Amino acid sequence: MENATQQQEQEKETVKQHLRKVTDLLDKLQLEESLVYKQRMPRHELIESLLHKRYEVKLKQMLELMRPADIAYILEALPLDKRLMVWGLVKAEHEGQILLDVSDAVRETLISDMEPDQLLSAAEQLETDEIADLAPDLPIEVMQDLLESLNEPHRQRLESVLSYDEESVGALMDFGMVTIREDLTLKAVLRYLRRLKKLPEHTDKLFVIDRDHHLKGALSLKSLLLNNTKKRVADIMETDVVSFKTDDEAMEAALAFERYDLVSAPVVDSDNRLVGRICVDVIMDFIRQDSEEEILNQAGLEEEEDLSSSIWKSARNRWTWLMINIVTAFAATRVISLFEGTIMHIVALASLMPIVAAIGGNTGNQSGILIVRTLALGQVTESSLRRMFFKELGIGLLNGIVWGTAVGGIVYLIYGNPGLGFVMAAAMFLNLLVAALMGVTIPIVRYKLGRDPAIGVSVLITFLTDGMGFLIFLGLATMFLL
Amino acid sequence: MENATQQQEQEKETVKQHLRKVTDLLDKLQLEESLVYKQRMPRHELIESLLHKRYEVKLKQMLELMRPADIAYILEALPLDKRLMVWGLVKAEHEGQILLDVSDAVRETLISDMEPDQLLSAAEQLETDEIADLAPDLPIEVMQDLLESLNEPHRQRLESVLSYDEESVGALMDFGMVTIREDLTLKAVLRYLRRLKKLPEHTDKLFVIDRDHHLKGALSLKSLLLNNTKKRVADIMETDVVSFKTDDEAMEAALAFERYDLVSAPVVDSDNRLVGRICVDVIMDFIRQDSEEEILNQAGLEEEEDLSSSIWKSARNRWTWLMINIVTAFAATRVISLFEGTIMHIVALASLMPIVAAIGGNTGNQSGILIVRTLALGQVTESSLRRMFFKELGIGLLNGIVWGTAVGGIVYLIYGNPGLGFVMAAAMFLNLLVAALMGVTIPIVRYKLGRDPAIGVSVLITFLTDGMGFLIFLGLATMFLL
Repeated sequence: MENATQQQEQEKETVKQHLRKVTDLLDKLQLEESLVYKQRMPRHELIESLLHKRYEVKLKQMLELMRPADIAYILEALPLDKRLMVWGLVKAEHEGQILLDVSDAVRETLISDMEPDQLLSAAEQLETDEIADLAPDLPIEVMQDLLESLNEPHRQRLESVLSYDEESVGALMDFGMVTIREDLTLKAVLRYLRRLKKLPEHTDKLFVIDRDHHLKGALSLKSLLLNNTKKRVADIMETDVVSFKTDDEAMEAALAFERYDLVSAPVVDSDNRLVGRICVDVIMDFIRQDSEEEILNQAGLEEEEDLSSSIWKSARNRWTWLMINIVTAFAATRVISLFEGTIMHIVALASLMPIVAAIGGNTGNQSGILIVRTLALGQVTESSLRRMFFKELGIGLLNGIVWGTAVGGIVYLIYGNPGLGFVMAAAMFLNLLVAALMGVTIPIVRYKLGRDPAIGVSVLITFLTDGMGFLIFLGLATMFLL
Repeated sequence: MENATQQQEQEKETVKQHLRKVTDLLDKLQLEESLVYKQRMPRHELIESLLHKRYEVKLKQMLELMRPADIAYILEALPLDKRLMVWGLVKAEHEGQILLDVSDAVRETLISDMEPDQLLSAAEQLETDEIADLAPDLPIEVMQDLLESLNEPHRQRLESVLSYDEESVGALMDFGMVTIREDLTLKAVLRYLRRLKKLPEHTDKLFVIDRDHHLKGALSLKSLLLNNTKKRVADIMETDVVSFKTDDEAMEAALAFERYDLVSAPVVDSDNRLVGRICVDVIMDFIRQDSEEEILNQAGLEEEEDLSSSIWKSARNRWTWLMINIVTAFAATRVISLFEGTIMHIVALASLMPIVAAIGGNTGNQSGILIVRTLALGQVTESSLRRMFFKELGIGLLNGIVWGTAVGGIVYLIYGNPGLGFVMAAAMFLNLLVAALMGVTIPIVRYKLGRDPAIGVSVLITFLTDGMGFLIFLGLATMFLL
C-alpha cells in the first residue's frame, strides 16, 4: 500500500523533477568544460576526464528510465547546446518516437544534428503514418533511402499518405486498424486477438469489413467483453458508425470527434472501402495546432518559435507582418497630410485623431473575430449571414451613440470647446459604424469567395478604420470648425 | 454491400442535411403563421390548422431519429424563435444531454424557456458530474429541488464536484470508473463485467484498488482481452499509471493527456484513494475552450457570443474592452498635447507619429504573445527566462536597425527633409526597443508575481508603446528640428 503510494508520488513528479536534474547535470558538465577551457586543455582530454565521464553516465542512466514523451518535453525546454548534448545521449531506439513528439522548431534542430544513416535508422523504427509526419523535415536523400528500404505495400501506403492535403483526414489517419469479418463468432474473434498478442494504441473498436474491404460496421471492445462469446459479430456490431473519407476536411473530423466523443473512427475511400483509421490523439494535436496557428496569426506571427532558434530566424518570422504594417500605416496616415492646413489651425486635432482611429480598429476587430469564428464552425446559412450582418451593424450603432456621446463629452470637458466635442462625437459615431461594417463584410466576402475568412482580416480592418477614422474626423473638423 | 454503403452515405450527410430540412420546415411553419396572422385568424386556430400540424409532426419525426449531439448542433445554428420552436418538440428524455452539448450562450436561452419542473426532470436524467456542469446555469430553486431529489452518496458527490476550482482536475472528473481488486483472475473480472452489462463511455481500462480504495494500478481492456483468463489481475496490471489529484491544474492534466496519448486516467485524493476518473472528451473540450478564451481575450471579448443573443447583450460583452481602450487612448495621446507647439511648426509630424506608435504596438504584442505562450507551457527555468529576455531585446535591436533605417529613408523620400528622416529612423529604433522590452517584461513580471501572464498584456503593451512612441518621436523632433 505504502509502496504503491510512493510509486504514484514518484510518477507524478517525474517530468519536472527530471527537467531540473538534467539541467543540473548539464550545468556541471558545462562548468567543468569552461574551467578546462580556461586551462587550455584540449577538448578530447576533457571528454576523457573522469569527472566528465561520471556526469555523463549519470545523465544517460536517467534518460534510459524516462519515457520518450518526457525526453521530448525536456529537449524542448533546453537551450540549443544543452539540447544537443542530451540528444547525443538518447538511446537510438527512442530517437524516432522523440522526433515525432517534439515541436516542429525543435525537430529541425535535432535533425540538422543527425547523420543521414542515423536519421534513416530512426525513421525505420516508425509506422508508415508516423514517417509521413516526419517526411517534410527529412533531407531528400534520407527520404529516398527510406522509400527504398520499405517493402512494396508499405511504400505505397507512405506515398498515398504523403499525397493527401495537409488539412485532410487522409493526412491524419494511421493504419493501426484491426479488421474482422461479420460472420465470425465472438469466440473466434477473441482467439484471433490473442494470436495477434498486441493491439495498436487507441483500439477501442474493431472494424468489420467484407471480402472486398468494404466497411460494414464496428465492434467495440466493450461489446466484445460484455456479450456471450457464442454470438456472431453481425448480431452485435454497430452499423451506423461515424466514418470519414480520406479527402474530408480534418476540421470537420475534429468537430465530429468532439460532437460524438469518439476515440477512433474508420477512414474509407470513395467506394466505402476501409483504408485507415483516425484516432483522438491525432485529433487533439490537430485542434491544438489549429488554435495555436489562429492565436499566432492574430499577432502576425507565421509560426511558433523555438526558444533557442536564432535571433535572425525569429526576426524574419515577424517581418512579413512588420512590413505589411509599415505599408498600411503609411497609407492610412497619408490621409492626415491632406488636412495639414486644418491641423495648423486647430492643433488639438493632432492629439484627438489617434483616439478615433484606435477605437475604430479595436471594435472592428472584435466584430471580425466573432464572424470568423462563426464561419469556421460552419453553422451558417444565407439567413444567418444576414442576421449577423444586421446584428453587428446594430451593435455598431448602439456603441456609436453611447461611446460617441461619452467621448464627445470628455473632449468638451478637456478643451471647453463645444464644437470640438461635437465633431469628436460625430466622428466616433461614424467610425464605429464603419468598423462594424468592415468587421462583418470583409470576412463574409472572403468566405463567399471560397477563401479562408480569417487571413488578413485584422490587417485590413485596422487599415480601413485608421484611414477612415482620420478622414472622418479631420473632414468633419474642416467642415465645421474652420 | 450496397446497402451498407448507402447507410454510410446517409450517415455522413446527416447533420448538415438535417439542418437544411429543419430550417425548411420551420420556414414553412412561419410563412403559414404570418399568412394566418394577416387574415387575423386567432392563434389557437392556427395551431389547430391541419397544415401546421402536418409540418410539426414531420419535424418531430425527424428530431426523433437524430442523436442528441446533432440536435444540439442544429439548435445552435438556428435563430432564437426557431430554436425555441424546435426545442419544444424535442423528446423529454434527450433534453438533459442536449443541454450539456450546446454552448453556454445557447444553453442559457434554452433554460430560460423551460419550466422549473421540466428542468428538474431533464437534470435528473444526467450523471452527477454532468449535473455539476449544468449547475452554474440552473436557477437556484431547481438546484435545491435537485439536491433534495438525489440520494445521499450522489448528493455528496455533486457537492464535492461543485466545490472544486473550475480550472482543476476535480471539476472535470466523472465517476464512471469500473474498479476491481488485484487478487481476481481475469476470468472473474470478465464474469463481473458481463454482470454489469454496460461499461461507461471511454472505458479503456479498469482501475485496480485495494480494500481502502487506494489506487494500485490499472488493467486495460486490451490486456484483459489478450491474456489467458487464468492469470490474476496483479500479474498483468500496469502499476505506473498516470494519475491526477483532484486539485491538480486542469491544464497540466491536458498536457499530460497529449504527452502520453491517454483516453482515461484515474483521479485520486491526497491519500492516493481513487475518487474519480478523467476522460479525453472532457480534456478535448477543455483545450478547445481554453484556446477559444485566449483568442477571444486577445480581441478583448469576454465570452463567445451566441448568434441570436440580443444586440444589447452582445454590446455589453464588448464594453469593458472599449472603455479600457478609450481610457488608455486618451492617456497615451495626452503626450501629444505637450508637443502642440512643435506640431504647429512642423505639421508633417502629425501624420508620421501614428506610424511610430502603431509599429511599436504591433511588435511589442508579438513578443508578448510568444512569451505568454512559453510561460503557459511551463517549460521555464530561471535561465530560460533570461534567455528569452535577451533574445527579444536582440530581435528588437535588429528590427530597430533594419526597419528604422527603412522607414527613415521613406520619410526622407516623401518629405525631402533629411532631418525629419533621421528623427523618424531614431524614433522607430528606440520605440521598437521599448516595445521588445515591454513585450517581455510585462508577462514575466506578472508570471513572477504568480498572476496569469496573459491578462491585460496587450492593452498595457499598446498603451505604453503608443505613449512612448509619441513621446520619443515628438521629443526628438523638438530637440533636433526646431
